[in-house]
Order: sequence, then structure tokens, then C-alpha cells
Amino acid sequence: MMEHNLQDTISLLCRTPAVLSALLRDLPEAWTLRSEGENTWSAFDVVGHLIHGERTDWMQRARIILQFGEARAFEPFDRLGHAREIQGKSLGELLDEFARLRAENLGELRGLNLGQEDLDRRGLHPALGVVTLSELLATWAAHDLTHLHQISRVMAHQYREVVGPWSRYLGVLQCAGHSSPS
Amino acid sequence: MMEHNLQDTISLLCRTPAVLSALLRDLPEAWTLRSEGENTWSAFDVVGHLIHGERTDWMQRARIILQFGEARAFEPFDRLGHAREIQGKSLGELLDEFARLRAENLGELRGLNLGQEDLDRRGLHPALGVVTLSELLATWAAHDLTHLHQISRVMAHQYREVVGPWSRYLGVLQCAGHSSPS
Repeated sequence: MMEHNLQDTISLLCRTPAVLSALLRDLPEAWTLRSEGENTWSAFDVVGHLIHGERTDWMQRARIILQFGEARAFEPFDRLGHAREIQGKSLGELLDEFARLRAENLGELRGLNLGQEDLDRRGLHPALGVVTLSELLATWAAHDLTHLHQISRVMAHQYREVVGPWSRYLGVLQCAGHSSPS
Repeated sequence: MMEHNLQDTISLLCRTPAVLSALLRDLPEAWTLRSEGENTWSAFDVVGHLIHGERTDWMQRARIILQFGEARAFEPFDRLGHAREIQGKSLGELLDEFARLRAENLGELRGLNLGQEDLDRRGLHPALGVVTLSELLATWAAHDLTHLHQISRVMAHQYREVVGPWSRYLGVLQCAGHSSPS
């Protein structure tokens, strides 16, 4: 089994704002504002969700583990909390906000100088039960990837018809790997 | 049904090299060189495949449609052709090569000044049968997205164990949307 390497996790986490900016900034709204249907998210919504995670999920939960261990469960994450983040904002503003919050959070994470003993510390997830700080931080990176995966899929969905017979060759159009609340 | 807008397609196509560079350049090899198991691709392999497509697939097929219509079928695309592209190269070199070839191809595409009549022209795919130039160009963009989707999935796969119980919440770890030969 692969060990979790915190430097690999940070390497990925610090890139995501630039990746999303390169992909989405000034892209036509036909790509960024359309979803996969009712009650599904557009790329714009996903960036709002990532902002909400920076504010209320990852480092907040890391602090709870370090201060309270298993004695205090995390607050459940509000999957609809992104609605407040995106209201009245442009996609460019959201991308800037995400980059700012991510940089702040990674600054705090690096400042903690976590060693293996810290990474092994345990906390209590309200639904999943006991988790470690290592698992939380690895999930932060994998969560970026699940949403990059989702954004690619939501965007490709917009081309489902216009690719004609090629649709059967494009794996992204067969994807059923949708995420649940984290 | 959504109409294909060539400007939307070009907007996406011209971004992909910067997206992949932001995501992959100088990223630890634990992310970029690992695959999902035997006979599957790493992110590094995918960039080689994209290079091979720039050389032998999209604009080459567009030229065949414009010159020969349905009278001459496309060459079948060699899904293993990336092996030659990646041999002895670093990931940084591959990313540079992809960006150079993509810019050249988009320069040629823009130079064609395609109108609706051109986009409706038909060609012959060796397996799929009759396709249009519009479908070919839309597929070029959707193909970028299917490989961004794949790269996110292949990278997330490396964290399948280290995220612990969160694996059940991460849609990317449940994805079965793998691509076939194009």
C-alpha cells in the first residue's frame, strides 16, 4: 500500500487554482454555465463549491483534529453552501477568490510543520467515523481531482450531440463517477 | 439540439496545453508516471497520445474531408502511436511539443476560414462510417476533455488507499468512463 506523502499532496493542491484559471477564465459561457441537467452543477457552480470547501472544510477540520482529536466531531459539510459564494459573482472573481483562499490555507498548512505523529492523529467524521489527519489532507487533493474530473465531464456533456457517432468512443460521455457529500 | 459553434471549440482547444502545463509540469512523478495498472496509461502517456493526435489525427482528417469528401476514408488512428512520441522525452519536453503542435494546427484551422457549408461536408471514418467536418472538430475538443477526465482519474487512483473511508464519497474513484480508440 502506498504511503501518503504530504509534499505530493501540497504539490497538487497548490496547482489547482492555476489549472482552473487556465481552463475556465474567459471561456465562452456555453462551456462554463451549462450543467448536466436539473439539479446538477456547471463548472461555475463547482468553483463556488471549491471556495466553500476552502472556507469551511479542509483546514477547519485539520484544526479540530489537532485541538480535539476524536473528542469533537467535524461540522457536517454543507454541499449547497456554494450558493452563497457564487451569488452576484463573475467566474473570474470566483477563480481569484479560490486562488486567494487556497494560498492562505496552504500557508497555514505549511506553517504547522506536520510530522508523521501529527498525520497519524485521529478525528471524528460525523458520518464516516474515525479518520486520520493524513486521510483528511489526502482527500483534500483527491477532492480537487474529483472536481476536475467532474468539470471535464460537465463540459464534454455539452458536446454529446455535436460529436455525432464519435460519442461512443469518448469515455467521458459514459462516466457515471459522480461524487457524494464529503 | 445544440448547434456546434466553431468558436467555442477553438476556445477550448487553444487552452488545453496551458491547462496540462499548469497541472503536470514539475509535479512529482508519483502523480505523473503512475497508471491505473498494467496496460493502462499514466498522465505522461496521455500527453504523448495527445501529441500523436496533433500529428496524425485531427487536422489531417480535416484535410482529407476537404479534399476528398467521402471518397477516401481516414487512416485508422494508432492508439499505440504515442510510444514513439514519449521515448526518451521528459514530461516538460512533451508539454512543450504538444503546445507547439496545437498552436500550429489551430493556426491552420483558423486560416481555413470555415463556413457552415464547409462544416457540413462529409467524410468517411474507417469504422464509424459517414461523419461531418463539424463532428470531427467538435470531437477534437471533446477528446481533450475525455483525456483531462482520464488524467484526473488516473491521478486520483494513486490516492485510492490513502484517503481512507472518504473513498466512497469521491466520484472519480467510481468512474468507469474509459475511452476507446478514436
